[in-house]
Amino acid sequence: MKLKFTKMHGAGNDFIVVDAINQQVELSAAQWQRLADRRFGIGADQILVVEKPTLPGCDFRYRIFNNDGGEVEQCGNGARAFVKFVAEKGLTKLSSIRVETKSGVIAPRLEADGGITVDMGAPVLAPAEVPFDADGLAGTAQGVDTLWPLELELGGARETVLVSVVSMGNPHAVQVVDDVETAPVDLSGPLIEHHPRFPRRVNAGFMQVLGRRHVRLRVYERGAGETLACGTGACAAVVAGIRRGLLDSPVRVDARGGQLSVAWAGAGQPVLLTGPAVTVFEGEITL
Amino acid sequence: MKLKFTKMHGAGNDFIVVDAINQQVELSAAQWQRLADRRFGIGADQILVVEKPTLPGCDFRYRIFNNDGGEVEQCGNGARAFVKFVAEKGLTKLSSIRVETKSGVIAPRLEADGGITVDMGAPVLAPAEVPFDADGLAGTAQGVDTLWPLELELGGARETVLVSVVSMGNPHAVQVVDDVETAPVDLSGPLIEHHPRFPRRVNAGFMQVLGRRHVRLRVYERGAGETLACGTGACAAVVAGIRRGLLDSPVRVDARGGQLSVAWAGAGQPVLLTGPAVTVFEGEITL
Repeated sequence: MKLKFTKMHGAGNDFIVVDAINQQVELSAAQWQRLADRRFGIGADQILVVEKPTLPGCDFRYRIFNNDGGEVEQCGNGARAFVKFVAEKGLTKLSSIRVETKSGVIAPRLEADGGITVDMGAPVLAPAEVPFDADGLAGTAQGVDTLWPLELELGGARETVLVSVVSMGNPHAVQVVDDVETAPVDLSGPLIEHHPRFPRRVNAGFMQVLGRRHVRLRVYERGAGETLACGTGACAAVVAGIRRGLLDSPVRVDARGGQLSVAWAGAGQPVLLTGPAVTVFEGEITL
Repeated sequence: MKLKFTKMHGAGNDFIVVDAINQQVELSAAQWQRLADRRFGIGADQILVVEKPTLPGCDFRYRIFNNDGGEVEQCGNGARAFVKFVAEKGLTKLSSIRVETKSGVIAPRLEADGGITVDMGAPVLAPAEVPFDADGLAGTAQGVDTLWPLELELGGARETVLVSVVSMGNPHAVQVVDDVETAPVDLSGPLIEHHPRFPRRVNAGFMQVLGRRHVRLRVYERGAGETLACGTGACAAVVAGIRRGLLDSPVRVDARGGQLSVAWAGAGQPVLLTGPAVTVFEGEITL
């Protein structure tokens, strides 16, 4: 069986995109995993599959497979690649489409400058729903945000870091640092990820505030380590920064893999993530 | 400019192969590097370029670019992918071809079972030519080999390992271990690589002898860390094992990325490396 695919990236987060409308695609978890392997397959963080919708009013169905072969829910960077793909391949002429995903319908938009905006949903701010176990902890108010103390055992020494907790469908702990380049991401990232107060673990964000509309960000991703750009991490960081009174929407986020922009109108409102998606090459693999 | 390419691997060592006979290919070092990038490009250990020969009596010219964009000399696994490529693409009907490379003419052979044999040249055994600085050291004879003691500082403790030194165009220090799975490759590999007695650094091989014609091998490669399969490392290990009286030619070498076979008739004779090459996918990239 021959499978045509397109390799893309969004701020360094890379994807294999497969059109399952114009070709038959039914692969096992082992085959998805093989495709994502960087030496024995094509190589990617995730595989995005474009299908016909099953829900009325939708233009496409969009499925995401992780590089371990399992199907997953949301991915901000992936949704941008998806939109760029259906536009470039002529699968739609619309600049705003309705897409059925495992976690609901999304309505991404292709901007005039080639950037793509994805509605990432409203942030979840109640600690118990992130989930974060605040039991017995004294939080510190800053703006309308509450900063929570996390005790970490760093190289024998005990250290307390103050974090905002935000869920964008996945949990984030965001701290403000003086300089992201020198922040101890590799050391404290895994300690935060596995901190017992996060029952489903957590993504650890390290944000440096450059101005009220401009931050630099590094994210230690749950189960993946530091990545080049985490879409939900950028959203969580900007939400935390706005709530702390440090930032005004929209905010430019400089990640290691590229530049994103995050807009948020405040509590109850959706977070809008805008960024690039780049087509790298076209390929065909025999399975 | 559009560039067609084929992605291949040889025992897990992966390559982008480009036909520069039927398409125009003139890329800068930055462009080669970009192609080899695993997120922003196609991704590979090396890029192999198939050109028309400039020397009489040769069928092809074969150039190799590293993933840092620089042009390099030999690569055993790459030469196998090269042969598979020219056969599959119909660029030749010969099973044995003469190929012009930066380090001389090679004559690889396509075997009936699909394996490919490459003449890797004769090993260089004189320590000074490896190069290895044996000044003031007492070597221990084993067979016709000399084992050299290397002092390593491993986690505070001083340890001495006994190595054979062999050059296959690049320097190797090979040690025999009881079990490659538990051998401290990650810890002692970099210490051996940078040991002051190797003025051009060294590849560190860890070989477990399973029988007189069968070994398991792990190699910590100079500048690259542990790799899935190192062609010259397999050759150096088998040469060392034969000289120590532990092995008889030909020897099956089980590396992490796959199986190789190494034959050597003794001093002054070339080492013959046989192994697979696999085509993974076909692609086209716009540069």
